[in-house]
Amino acid sequence: MRTQVAIIGAGPAGLLLGQLLARSGIDNIIVEQRSPDYVLGRIRAGILESVTVDALERAGVAARLHDEGLPHDGIELSFNGERHRIDLHALTGRRVTVYGQTEVTRDLMAARQAEGTTTIYEASDVSLHGFDGTRPLVRYRKDGATHEIECDYIAGCDGFHGVSRQSVPVASTRLFERVYPFGWLGILSDTPPVADELIYAGHERGFALCSMRSKARSRYYVQVPSTERAEDWSDARFWDELRSRLDPQAAQSLVTGPSIEKSIAPLRSFVCEPLRFGRLFLAGDAAHIVPPTGAKGLNLAASDVLYLADALAARYQQDDPRELDGYSEKCLRRIWKAERFSWWMTSLLHRFPDADAFSSRIQQAELDFLVSSEAARKALAENYVGLPY
Amino acid sequence: MRTQVAIIGAGPAGLLLGQLLARSGIDNIIVEQRSPDYVLGRIRAGILESVTVDALERAGVAARLHDEGLPHDGIELSFNGERHRIDLHALTGRRVTVYGQTEVTRDLMAARQAEGTTTIYEASDVSLHGFDGTRPLVRYRKDGATHEIECDYIAGCDGFHGVSRQSVPVASTRLFERVYPFGWLGILSDTPPVADELIYAGHERGFALCSMRSKARSRYYVQVPSTERAEDWSDARFWDELRSRLDPQAAQSLVTGPSIEKSIAPLRSFVCEPLRFGRLFLAGDAAHIVPPTGAKGLNLAASDVLYLADALAARYQQDDPRELDGYSEKCLRRIWKAERFSWWMTSLLHRFPDADAFSSRIQQAELDFLVSSEAARKALAENYVGLPY
Repeated sequence: MRTQVAIIGAGPAGLLLGQLLARSGIDNIIVEQRSPDYVLGRIRAGILESVTVDALERAGVAARLHDEGLPHDGIELSFNGERHRIDLHALTGRRVTVYGQTEVTRDLMAARQAEGTTTIYEASDVSLHGFDGTRPLVRYRKDGATHEIECDYIAGCDGFHGVSRQSVPVASTRLFERVYPFGWLGILSDTPPVADELIYAGHERGFALCSMRSKARSRYYVQVPSTERAEDWSDARFWDELRSRLDPQAAQSLVTGPSIEKSIAPLRSFVCEPLRFGRLFLAGDAAHIVPPTGAKGLNLAASDVLYLADALAARYQQDDPRELDGYSEKCLRRIWKAERFSWWMTSLLHRFPDADAFSSRIQQAELDFLVSSEAARKALAENYVGLPY
Repeated sequence: MRTQVAIIGAGPAGLLLGQLLARSGIDNIIVEQRSPDYVLGRIRAGILESVTVDALERAGVAARLHDEGLPHDGIELSFNGERHRIDLHALTGRRVTVYGQTEVTRDLMAARQAEGTTTIYEASDVSLHGFDGTRPLVRYRKDGATHEIECDYIAGCDGFHGVSRQSVPVASTRLFERVYPFGWLGILSDTPPVADELIYAGHERGFALCSMRSKARSRYYVQVPSTERAEDWSDARFWDELRSRLDPQAAQSLVTGPSIEKSIAPLRSFVCEPLRFGRLFLAGDAAHIVPPTGAKGLNLAASDVLYLADALAARYQQDDPRELDGYSEKCLRRIWKAERFSWWMTSLLHRFPDADAFSSRIQQAELDFLVSSEAARKALAENYVGLPY
């Protein structure tokens, strides 16, 4: 097989890139290790920046998002038993949209299927070759046979554990990492959300987040030590723990119910520099991970993909390689700001087991300053709705 | 002897409190371990918030400050070879005043002497008694004899190493501390400042600060490891090191000359809670230390003293003890915000020997965000000019 761009990974990053390239008349094939159902089964983020919404519009897959997505004009911070609203829209003129990553993926899959563009699911032993020269090649096994895709460029959209980044010689990369000594125990439940907007709760028992997927489906998280196992958490234990970390009003109005999904996600900050290796371009989680506190993961993937789609369009349509040459640097400026924000939101709201008394007071002072200063709230809001693309 | 308020320490905090009390008709005596010349010989801060200027006006000692002090409408951040101005006045409507702490002390001393209020210098073996009851007593030795001052209240304004805080039973206090693994090597020189405003420089060799006392006297600092000794730094070595950390334009226009003073100050964050123990009230460095990066030390002392002077006036004039009862809590809210800001400015601009690659990138991203976001610059400026009193 031959294509212009081989995309590794059929998650939201790879699918979005495929759609944007197709709309620019650039031929592409996606190779995915898993099945469509497996991909759709991954429960992930649900807060879209306007940059991400714009990208989905450009990709022609925003109809259902506009119908079903919930525009949110604010978030709430909860600490010391009180809630403080950050009015994102009043502070920045922009808002975010609550729409599950699973739904984004579903919409992108449907669009791709409708166009008849090739996606190879359940490809095993995927390997990347020749991207340091002029003739990159993707090899994989499927149905007992080995297949090859010749291409001009490879886009590595296969996440943190994917093969793309791991195909690059270690000496060519510089890795930056921070592993946090806790994770998020999250549940999904078909219960009405406790509030109209997200509640980020800092509490002496640990962080909690009240999020949602729709007006009938809630997503809740509590910070737990890295050593915890989801199977040790009954629904009742989860609800009790969540309730204990909320302000009295939220605790009282919390509607509980059976969990549909329950799992623990570790928290990690990670960046691989650069994002380009010859004709291989990394995008999204393949290149960087943020802790989910700032809701930046999916959004950062979308902006990488926008940069890459534009750069490839410039290359193919105007024979101009400069944007591809500048891809890594351009992405990294935005990535590091989002990494900083995600690290800061995480540091602001979580309990750190090794924190001394001074750190705890500083954390409290930062929350106090935040709610007393419009400028500080605006700096948070600018990051939360997404820095300029 | 008998007085209403015995003040321990004749630094700027004690002297300012004495003046404000005298103006409210409250009798006070200051007891100081050192001589006037020793007190004046301590080279300290030089940036006054408007709250501090207001306090000095209230104390009737602002004439020379208004004549000779330099109003500053901005500061500059220098990193990656470029300078970025933070326009304090445009962002907050307020400014700071450059006027050395030594000059503040000199003005306060002169005013106190003119009024003929008692200050006991070179008092040794100062000890505090009975402040947990109703009849506090200050005892000291001078000229070979033991003396006692009976009083209603004791104000502990004798700094971090003073006797006041150390007179409180350990079990009654909660101490918070962060010692930084570096200090500031500072010099004073009779050379024109390198720029009209202060330059805060973050550099891979370490932090540097270009400050001043007047248009003819400069104060410069470079971050050095805690293990360094001032006597190992010739003037030439200092100037070379400073120059290497500045942007090219500043490095080129730096005018060097012989140092008048050269010393290394350790960097420390420290808070003692509470600030009140019966009839003993701590104010200024006796209760809290900030690293000097945010120029908050003297200003925080001034706001403690304002709260305390007002509370004592309410007590004596309206027989209302509520402000005294609320003194500690009121101070601590402002103290912890200033502690946070000073810790943050320190973290933003210094090299930490144990910083990993991730932390260094986050520091860089924070600087990038700061210069790209007016809201972030405003949050910094609000703190720098002083949070609401």
